[in-house]
Amino acid sequence: MASVDGGPAGRQIDLNADVGESFGPWPMGDDERLIPLVSSVNIACGAHAGDPATIARTVRLALAGGAAIGAHPGYPDLAGFGRRDLDMAAEDLEASLIAQVGAVLAIARSEGAAVHHVKPHGALYNRAARDAGLATTIATAIARLDAGLVLVGLPGSALLEAGRAAGLTVRAEGFADRAYEPEGSLRDRRLDGAILGPKAAADQAVSIARDRFAIAGAGHIPVEVDTICLHGDGPDAVATAVAIRAALA
Amino acid sequence: MASVDGGPAGRQIDLNADVGESFGPWPMGDDERLIPLVSSVNIACGAHAGDPATIARTVRLALAGGAAIGAHPGYPDLAGFGRRDLDMAAEDLEASLIAQVGAVLAIARSEGAAVHHVKPHGALYNRAARDAGLATTIATAIARLDAGLVLVGLPGSALLEAGRAAGLTVRAEGFADRAYEPEGSLRDRRLDGAILGPKAAADQAVSIARDRFAIAGAGHIPVEVDTICLHGDGPDAVATAVAIRAALA
Amino acid sequence: MASVDGGPAGRQIDLNADVGESFGPWPMGDDERLIPLVSSVNIACGAHAGDPATIARTVRLALAGGAAIGAHPGYPDLAGFGRRDLDMAAEDLEASLIAQVGAVLAIARSEGAAVHHVKPHGALYNRAARDAGLATTIATAIARLDAGLVLVGLPGSALLEAGRAAGLTVRAEGFADRAYEPEGSLRDRRLDGAILGPKAAADQAVSIARDRFAIAGAGHIPVEVDTICLHGDGPDAVATAVAIRAALA
Amino acid sequence: MASVDGGPAGRQIDLNADVGESFGPWPMGDDERLIPLVSSVNIACGAHAGDPATIARTVRLALAGGAAIGAHPGYPDLAGFGRRDLDMAAEDLEASLIAQVGAVLAIARSEGAAVHHVKPHGALYNRAARDAGLATTIATAIARLDAGLVLVGLPGSALLEAGRAAGLTVRAEGFADRAYEPEGSLRDRRLDGAILGPKAAADQAVSIARDRFAIAGAGHIPVEVDTICLHGDGPDAVATAVAIRAALA
Repeated sequence: MASVDGGPAGRQIDLNADVGESFGPWPMGDDERLIPLVSSVNIACGAHAGDPATIARTVRLALAGGAAIGAHPGYPDLAGFGRRDLDMAAEDLEASLIAQVGAVLAIARSEGAAVHHVKPHGALYNRAARDAGLATTIATAIARLDAGLVLVGLPGSALLEAGRAAGLTVRAEGFADRAYEPEGSLRDRRLDGAILGPKAAADQAVSIARDRFAIAGAGHIPVEVDTICLHGDGPDAVATAVAIRAALA
Repeated sequence: MASVDGGPAGRQIDLNADVGESFGPWPMGDDERLIPLVSSVNIACGAHAGDPATIARTVRLALAGGAAIGAHPGYPDLAGFGRRDLDMAAEDLEASLIAQVGAVLAIARSEGAAVHHVKPHGALYNRAARDAGLATTIATAIARLDAGLVLVGLPGSALLEAGRAAGLTVRAEGFADRAYEPEGSLRDRRLDGAILGPKAAADQAVSIARDRFAIAGAGHIPVEVDTICLHGDGPDAVATAVAIRAALA
Repeated sequence: MASVDGGPAGRQIDLNADVGESFGPWPMGDDERLIPLVSSVNIACGAHAGDPATIARTVRLALAGGAAIGAHPGYPDLAGFGRRDLDMAAEDLEASLIAQVGAVLAIARSEGAAVHHVKPHGALYNRAARDAGLATTIATAIARLDAGLVLVGLPGSALLEAGRAAGLTVRAEGFADRAYEPEGSLRDRRLDGAILGPKAAADQAVSIARDRFAIAGAGHIPVEVDTICLHGDGPDAVATAVAIRAALA
Repeated sequence: MASVDGGPAGRQIDLNADVGESFGPWPMGDDERLIPLVSSVNIACGAHAGDPATIARTVRLALAGGAAIGAHPGYPDLAGFGRRDLDMAAEDLEASLIAQVGAVLAIARSEGAAVHHVKPHGALYNRAARDAGLATTIATAIARLDAGLVLVGLPGSALLEAGRAAGLTVRAEGFADRAYEPEGSLRDRRLDGAILGPKAAADQAVSIARDRFAIAGAGHIPVEVDTICLHGDGPDAVATAVAIRAALA
């Protein structure tokens, strides 16, 4: 996978972004400018965002930009953008995830591309960090579809543990543009200061990539990750990505 | 593919059925009893009918019954069951078809099964019989996804012609339980006598399989097909399937 | 509202049923036979079940049968039939409920009918029995739309309390065909014996209507209600309704 | 209804805009700035765009800005934004339109507002200009719901004729920011020059409002209308509205 030089020791770190989140007539994000700035992308699968033609366009942008292609499945809830908890039966969720990732696999294949990883989205991602049953459903679905897919999640999460138990390669994810709380969680999106601007995000990216910690309040917390996420949907998304790349270089 | 002995010369003919058409809490058809009676199935992909968990259950029934698995994509229109024309842009339709077939491919793969064929559904099937542009969009989508998939359509249709042009193996389909008009088309569903009962359907199946014609009005019309479709959603679907198998044996 | 004589003292009790739960090509229930047997109906609004044409047909059946018309809104989740918890923001839920009830109001008006009551469905109904915040959101939505609408819910529930606080007339509901637990709740649908057959349901209806209690295990529990619900979607729905009417007469 | 002074004779002309077209997490248009600039609004009803919470916010903006509130129903097709023909049965379309307008009626009522008019959207609007059967279905649906609603459509269209036949008050609509063809139709959106910029739109608005014609190619065509539409979804929507108001004043 393409990646970015993360510091004096030449350590490489992956930069990823959630993309392909437009739906029908409604654009979201600036994928044309963002995708060339990252080394891997997580493409919405049409259940919480995205649609088949958007997936195809996004796959082509990733191919052109040399970014590794991942699927970004979520709860099937367009109106809520997959950010609302939905109490799905395990059988329904497992089949939904396989179908969602399958749609991206098929479209990638039709464009001559392969799918490298899977990263759950929104409420699914957050719940799977601490709910072992849900994490197992997700990991099992992915492993049954293709045991070569890499599973991306929070470091120390139930999701990554379930992924390892299912025989998957896992990758831990940190965040450049989200503030961390002193105990290591992400600050709730609805609180002040939860979203960092370009300069602060670039500083945090360097701190995570080079020094393996983030600043939270008055202290430091360890953030041991393999990939750093840039959110693609804020107004500063592209500026933040440019600042991070410059800072990491 | 499993098939059924179609007459004195030992000719084998495939029997197919449209299945997996339940959605969420709403059942449709009697797939548990129907699938063991046919040699291939066309599974709804979740866009006009079906949902991921239903696809998974249907794939398992097909595996258990030894039926060849096909995908049955349609216009993305649940409320209209894919029976209403929808004026989709070619780019949108192509991506939708790849995503739909991709969902069945992925679920089949997670169950250890392969997908053998694709048969368009409803308004898409009917329009593609005579609209060369639409037929090309469908055939291209399938060929880009997997050129080994077999394309099923009406004999002499624009769809099969486009399939051959795209390098696909094609299979012509006849109907046991639908009346033919003297010029060779199917009688409109909304007209009297359009749907045949078990006895008439069995007679027509034998006539098509053994003699390669169907009776339409006072005459005979040639029906040169590789597979005969039984509709799975009528009240007599299972009785019709039993009668046809008995008649063909 | 039409009602049914409930016993020796001539007490009248309302019988209600959840109807209009078909969606597009998928039928559910036998509304043509069930609606003439009840005195009020709760019509699905198109968000968890139903569609506009189904609402219109159901309104006409209720008019023909003399049943009071109610709206039966639920979480907007067709695939889950409104039986899955969905973590909607209060603002979104309130607007959704007004739009759902508004669709039934408008269709009823176009058929020359009025809407009498609102009864939440599924997960929304169950959560609102004990979640005061959710109950207030529901009651407020209804009162803002039309303070003359009657709100139906479980006796002693947070929903009815919120309804009274919002100035609505409320109506407590009991169940003929669902077993009660000794502490007064309904037995979980997934447990054995949760659904009563026609004979047991008729006995329970008489016991509730005449004696104001239900038998639960070895004892009796008080069930003080204004209306008794028959579920319309089971295979015995019509037989149960016939048995209850005969028993109450 | 609030309106804008359209010329030397003090003729008043209504300015309308299509609004409320955001969906879930996806914004569209700049309703907060646009609505105060027009005298009537057409609010998407949740079938091709919009959602209940968006309808409520839009109703409040219209109330605050003093704009007359209209419903803007379309084909139930979010992914296609109601711009694709969908071959709905008349019964289904009629019920859908009543439910869609009913949702806006109910939400407006809950906000203390009334609904003044109905203007079909997209493919429905375009087809109803020339398809008398479709036009009658639309007009009948509105008249059955509330015969006091005003129907907005193209001058000389089948839609307005059907509206008058159904007893509705009708209002003819012209376009400030769309080029007219010499025979009087709107230039196809996909052709060059179809969308006018702020300056040209302001000139055309004055020409229509004061002189009752538009310039098309080398000539003039009569445009006799009661209201002029500004599209709310282009990047120049607000600038165009400002220019038109200034030109008309």
